[in-house]
Amino acid sequence: MAVSRKIKGFMEKSSWIRRMFETGAELKAKHGVENVFDFSLGNPNVPPPASFQKALEEAVRETAPNKHGYMPNGGYPHVRQEVAGFVSRRHGVSATADDIVMTVGAGGGLNAVIKAIVDPGDEVLAMIPYFVEYGFYADNHGAALTLAPTTEEFDLDIAAIEGALTPRTSAVIINSPNNPTGAVYPASSIAALGEVLARKSEEYGRTIYLVSDEPYTAIVYEGTEVPSVFSHYRNSIVVTSYSKDLSIPGERIGYAAVHPDIEDHANLVGGIILCNRILGFVNAPAMMQRVVGKLQGETVDIAEYARKRELICDGLERLGYEFVKPRGTFYLMPRAPGGDDVAFVQALQDELVLAVPGSGFGLPGHFRLSFCVPDETITGAMPGFERAIARYR
Amino acid sequence: MAVSRKIKGFMEKSSWIRRMFETGAELKAKHGVENVFDFSLGNPNVPPPASFQKALEEAVRETAPNKHGYMPNGGYPHVRQEVAGFVSRRHGVSATADDIVMTVGAGGGLNAVIKAIVDPGDEVLAMIPYFVEYGFYADNHGAALTLAPTTEEFDLDIAAIEGALTPRTSAVIINSPNNPTGAVYPASSIAALGEVLARKSEEYGRTIYLVSDEPYTAIVYEGTEVPSVFSHYRNSIVVTSYSKDLSIPGERIGYAAVHPDIEDHANLVGGIILCNRILGFVNAPAMMQRVVGKLQGETVDIAEYARKRELICDGLERLGYEFVKPRGTFYLMPRAPGGDDVAFVQALQDELVLAVPGSGFGLPGHFRLSFCVPDETITGAMPGFERAIARYR
Repeated sequence: MAVSRKIKGFMEKSSWIRRMFETGAELKAKHGVENVFDFSLGNPNVPPPASFQKALEEAVRETAPNKHGYMPNGGYPHVRQEVAGFVSRRHGVSATADDIVMTVGAGGGLNAVIKAIVDPGDEVLAMIPYFVEYGFYADNHGAALTLAPTTEEFDLDIAAIEGALTPRTSAVIINSPNNPTGAVYPASSIAALGEVLARKSEEYGRTIYLVSDEPYTAIVYEGTEVPSVFSHYRNSIVVTSYSKDLSIPGERIGYAAVHPDIEDHANLVGGIILCNRILGFVNAPAMMQRVVGKLQGETVDIAEYARKRELICDGLERLGYEFVKPRGTFYLMPRAPGGDDVAFVQALQDELVLAVPGSGFGLPGHFRLSFCVPDETITGAMPGFERAIARYR
Repeated sequence: MAVSRKIKGFMEKSSWIRRMFETGAELKAKHGVENVFDFSLGNPNVPPPASFQKALEEAVRETAPNKHGYMPNGGYPHVRQEVAGFVSRRHGVSATADDIVMTVGAGGGLNAVIKAIVDPGDEVLAMIPYFVEYGFYADNHGAALTLAPTTEEFDLDIAAIEGALTPRTSAVIINSPNNPTGAVYPASSIAALGEVLARKSEEYGRTIYLVSDEPYTAIVYEGTEVPSVFSHYRNSIVVTSYSKDLSIPGERIGYAAVHPDIEDHANLVGGIILCNRILGFVNAPAMMQRVVGKLQGETVDIAEYARKRELICDGLERLGYEFVKPRGTFYLMPRAPGGDDVAFVQALQDELVLAVPGSGFGLPGHFRLSFCVPDETITGAMPGFERAIARYR
């Protein structure tokens, strides 16, 4: 016996994803990368803004002693202060450095937050379709992921959420703008969610935290605004990263921000910092903390994604695909013609177009496309998209 | 209820450490930083080598597309290849990129490795005195930390280890050169450990992994050699970082290397990579991976630490302190005069000298000093060390 039974189970369960990636790699090797149209990965392809390169060069030239050394586990105080300033403006609160914990991306932040708040046997509620990592993140800390459906338009289904809450629910995770759907929950939905959580917390005699995973907040279209959870529920924690804002997901830098008026503030922030340490993150990468500290509110050129969004949405609409046009992110989730998402993704693969079945996000019957790809990938894939849907006419 | 019961418990249990740090901060505020002699932190103070700055500047100037983007969760293939070359030379094996997983420091690596191999209820055996984080790292993944004493000289106590192994032991962690003692286990001890683990694995019908946490390998004195675990036990995994080699602990970059002939190789490495992903690390920081890839075998100027070691050891010896002279690291662990480590650390604090009680490492009656401090801190502290020990004469 080598690998733990649980991890072996995870590996077997996710082997179909691995096979899919292997097939994709084989197709690229056989037909040439330029002839395979890969919409399966969420790796931002718009370059970082010039301000990032400038801040990075400055950070490298700095001659401060111990500049690559440890700092407090919650992050550099001055960086936490910069982030608090941004959080205050964005979320309409008066945040201070004490509300902020710098983390190893949003993934690291979510794990530190979940570990800090769940006891074994607790439940974490997420929305279908959901980012598959949430299941692991809950399980890592002994909690179970429970699920509530969303509406046809991929908006929050408040009645379904209320029905899915139990006395064991310690947190609800939402992700808006949403991966995989591109949905942005309107203020009315967030307000209704806050009302339900406050009422149910009262009823169950425990705090149900709202964890808002929002790394795509900057990537929105046609003037869409992303309402702040802080305006609608005080027991909220925002977890985010600079991965998509600045196109630097490989650098693993983000933060958790708690509502300044959150219950049991000092223990909660202390707990998140402790978990950041004991999970082995220790602290967010030093130099990148100092770099992003100077880049509050900076983003990549969103117009690039907006153009790709029009290109893919217009193209697919013309071919008869049915989908909710994304209001944010670089994803969309069309219905699978014929209804069987795995079969349809296979049909696309036959046309050298790579996508991810909705089953991977808990929503069979749909498939996810990432449009953070060169424009030519989008235009070049259209004949394949056309032939694939034609099979189902 | 806000923070989880477990995390609240951890915070209460570690509150004495926090109080100690707070007292240290208060003393510095009151008496001035230059008048407080802080030996409590393991934050390397020797600057990174010039080669690091050069490689960093090159990495920043590189114009590769997607240079801050995601790469495979195990790390850049070319970096894993570079590390494999170094591992091959250092450990006398023929390692390939498939034996290496790039991690968020050794802390991240240990968590990914432990999660990959333990099932709930398993045991992880460590040596007293031990790095306090090991207890958290085992607990994070549902395992219990068990402990075996070391000898008077802080060497492995093979009989004690054999007695502490049980059918539930899935891993033994060693740390050589050792934090907090500075001990380096000789080849004979590693060989004897390998023999016991092979025999006990056979007896219990399960693989007992040897996890060698070795971030201090480069920091050794007087020609001390650190024997490779790979030479003595095939079911070994080396976890290390560049934190001390290059004085960059804040950057969170390290790796796990499995023995090329380890049992169930593909599943184990696949499991470590999966755990690296699902624990929220996702991947080791991108740019730092490329930087350290070029710096295999590079180190800070060890002569700096060697000088500080002489300075502190000579000074303390002259004053009558009893200790095993460290063969590696920048720590030493003298006996507490009077026998009560907490009381003696308090006596030192009265003299504005900050140290850590051995109780924090599971070894009461001793205290730990970190000598990665300016020379003046060492010389300046000697009068305080003298007055403190004088109380116990």
